[in-house]
Amino acid sequence: MNSIKIMLEEKKMPTHWYNLAADLPNPPQPPLGPDGNPVSPQMLAKIFPMNLIEQEMSRERWIKIPDEIRDILYRWRPTPLRRAVYLERYLKTPARIYYKDESVSPAGSHKPNTAVAQAWYNKQFGIKKLSTETGAGQWGSALAFACTLLGLECKVFMVRISFDQKPFRKMMMKAWGADCIASPSLQTNAGREILKKDPDTPGSLGIAISEAVEQAVSDPSGKTRYALGSVLNHVMLHQTIIGLEAKEQLKTAGEKKIDVVIGCAGGGSNFAGISFPFVCDKIHGEKIRIYPVEPTACPTLTRGPFVYDYGDVARMTPLLAMYSLGHNFIPPAIHAGGLRYHGIAPLVSQATVEGLLEPKAYDQVKCYEAALLWAKTEGLIVAPETSHAVACAIEEAIKAREEGKERTILFCLSGHGLMDLAGYDKYMNGELKEACLSEDLLQKAVSVFQSHPQPKICRTGKW
Amino acid sequence: MNSIKIMLEEKKMPTHWYNLAADLPNPPQPPLGPDGNPVSPQMLAKIFPMNLIEQEMSRERWIKIPDEIRDILYRWRPTPLRRAVYLERYLKTPARIYYKDESVSPAGSHKPNTAVAQAWYNKQFGIKKLSTETGAGQWGSALAFACTLLGLECKVFMVRISFDQKPFRKMMMKAWGADCIASPSLQTNAGREILKKDPDTPGSLGIAISEAVEQAVSDPSGKTRYALGSVLNHVMLHQTIIGLEAKEQLKTAGEKKIDVVIGCAGGGSNFAGISFPFVCDKIHGEKIRIYPVEPTACPTLTRGPFVYDYGDVARMTPLLAMYSLGHNFIPPAIHAGGLRYHGIAPLVSQATVEGLLEPKAYDQVKCYEAALLWAKTEGLIVAPETSHAVACAIEEAIKAREEGKERTILFCLSGHGLMDLAGYDKYMNGELKEACLSEDLLQKAVSVFQSHPQPKICRTGKW
Repeated sequence: MNSIKIMLEEKKMPTHWYNLAADLPNPPQPPLGPDGNPVSPQMLAKIFPMNLIEQEMSRERWIKIPDEIRDILYRWRPTPLRRAVYLERYLKTPARIYYKDESVSPAGSHKPNTAVAQAWYNKQFGIKKLSTETGAGQWGSALAFACTLLGLECKVFMVRISFDQKPFRKMMMKAWGADCIASPSLQTNAGREILKKDPDTPGSLGIAISEAVEQAVSDPSGKTRYALGSVLNHVMLHQTIIGLEAKEQLKTAGEKKIDVVIGCAGGGSNFAGISFPFVCDKIHGEKIRIYPVEPTACPTLTRGPFVYDYGDVARMTPLLAMYSLGHNFIPPAIHAGGLRYHGIAPLVSQATVEGLLEPKAYDQVKCYEAALLWAKTEGLIVAPETSHAVACAIEEAIKAREEGKERTILFCLSGHGLMDLAGYDKYMNGELKEACLSEDLLQKAVSVFQSHPQPKICRTGKW
Repeated sequence: MNSIKIMLEEKKMPTHWYNLAADLPNPPQPPLGPDGNPVSPQMLAKIFPMNLIEQEMSRERWIKIPDEIRDILYRWRPTPLRRAVYLERYLKTPARIYYKDESVSPAGSHKPNTAVAQAWYNKQFGIKKLSTETGAGQWGSALAFACTLLGLECKVFMVRISFDQKPFRKMMMKAWGADCIASPSLQTNAGREILKKDPDTPGSLGIAISEAVEQAVSDPSGKTRYALGSVLNHVMLHQTIIGLEAKEQLKTAGEKKIDVVIGCAGGGSNFAGISFPFVCDKIHGEKIRIYPVEPTACPTLTRGPFVYDYGDVARMTPLLAMYSLGHNFIPPAIHAGGLRYHGIAPLVSQATVEGLLEPKAYDQVKCYEAALLWAKTEGLIVAPETSHAVACAIEEAIKAREEGKERTILFCLSGHGLMDLAGYDKYMNGELKEACLSEDLLQKAVSVFQSHPQPKICRTGKW
């Protein structure tokens, strides 16, 4: 029997998350308040529970995963590591392609890894309700799932255009007991202001974040907090269970050396999850190439500047030191909604500044082509976001064939695409266009940074 | 850590399928041709490959699973056996509820278990193309998946109303390279005849079967065969891997005695899969209650007669000895499309005649109520079909509480409902009505049998 699926025993599921901040040669720079000074934990206390704020600021290398969280994660974890033998044969490549299959979670993506942790920490802190935003719906449904298991209320502000176009995601959240409404809404000041100016707005992630944060901070009982599905340090932390498991599984598969690690990158969470344990190895001398892959329509790491920028349109969040296309930037309407965020996690940004990562950007047409080849060989229909990682893995496997070299490739299959088939259909009907961001639009987007405080660029650069 | 997920090692995946026909006190009666005589293998040779026809007629108890089929099944098998501890706590029941999670397959249901086997046997026999029908789309997408992995062409006739209402399923088949068209179509005589009479017909499973069979038998190259996703003996056989795995896993969980086994029942395949290995135990003296659960809208086992009936509207199939509501019967349009078939597998029928099974029928409103409780406690959104098994498990668990008795319950979670959320939405909005079949309609449906040859009712009845 082919060794195409490598399972990990329950008892070998990681007991600790890995914190890259402990190992980065230059740790990420602190978030700043509107006055340009670093924010204190107290300034965030109305938005997040203090236990998560501590985690956000921690420099500890290993942070214990509470048993109750492990109990819940164990419902679908450890996830399988699979080897893409059918694709390898099709490509006639000497490369061995492994993928960590996060699509097996009940919500269909890696998002529940942090949703469950965040819901649990909030509950421990006495919080009764979480508010959040969602674009395509992966994060909103993951948080709805976590909240129903832990008995918390959940309120999701879903970008109106997705709310209207993706009724299934909305129904999924509702089935899990969440209150999902279209954003902008009449329930917040931020929403009302925007609707007054533009009653027909399709909404945006930036607007939805503003509404969700307002919802949390304005609850007079003080029992509501905000939850974010990507970008922040504690979210990256919770996702490292992906890469830690994969490392164990690769050992079981007899792989001594990993050459390439790949993840698609929007806010950065699945990329951080699969790659940070390997970034640690790279810092400690291993030769390994690590590729975050983004869409050419939203080329944050490949073409954006490293700056201090806000996480939302209404500037309600602190300033974060990150690569960004500007908090007002609205990328072209590609199908990979989860990769349309203007910024990217400070930890991923700092690792990029340090030269530890080699960002790539692919166009959506190339990605759907890869996804379709994947579906026909490996039999899995991946999310449009995940197709970026698939395209990169295929490119690397072909390069290995051309160079006549063995190579071990690992990527994160972050989610399935069963609820996002419209993009496939467009591609198959030849209706999908390339969506590369023009230089003009890029320049216009990043002009916003002239008035911002800028982060220091600290590079060690020995990789 | 709670023992909520029981995995089975690769090497313990069953090596043989179990054939209930070997153990039934009175084996199922043979299919008959239009002349009332048993059909010979040769009469079926234009529809199915000879290796599957042999399997269909086999009385061997154990049939070896070819290694290549096991290699493919291993991509998602053994599937997890899970314990519903959250639901148990919610219900305050002393019962232990286990469920075999078949939703983890790439197509999201148990259907690929037989799709892969059928595609493989056809390929071995030199067949290049398979044709089939699909209603809601579970079976069509499973066969498309299997065909792409094995390099066969696949043609799916999808009931027009589903084709129009469920675009995602159709796209899924297309992504896997299948040619999926609406039925009735202009590509077959059967389709053209029906469209001539009624150009706006929504189509039916019976019509789509007629078209798919015609497609297979009329290929002049002789390289096309028909594949059916349920009802037939070889389909039941391929699904027994579900129950065989579950038995091993229950042993691992320390369960010595299973009290109740449950599966939803349409054509009978997931029910047969989970239950037949336990039916064998019952025949050999174990005390165990086995419940096939059907919708009150299509109460084949609970209210239909045991008769010889055709599998399709156009009477292209042999006559099968089964419970049936009549091959012309069109049940109310409930959301569990997979449970709307007029007949049920001859093996399930014979086991019912023998008194080995205790069929139940539930209304869809009760089933959605159960499915929603399941989503909120166990975190999984099940298919509308599967909700019938969930409702039965909940009923049994409540009975155990009322009787103050421990009880071990096993059911088959046959598929997820991520592509069928419209029914949930209707239920949550209070728009879903009960859909019990009236006595008048039942009488009208079964009046068709007056002119048919009838099977003998052979009962041993010691259970």
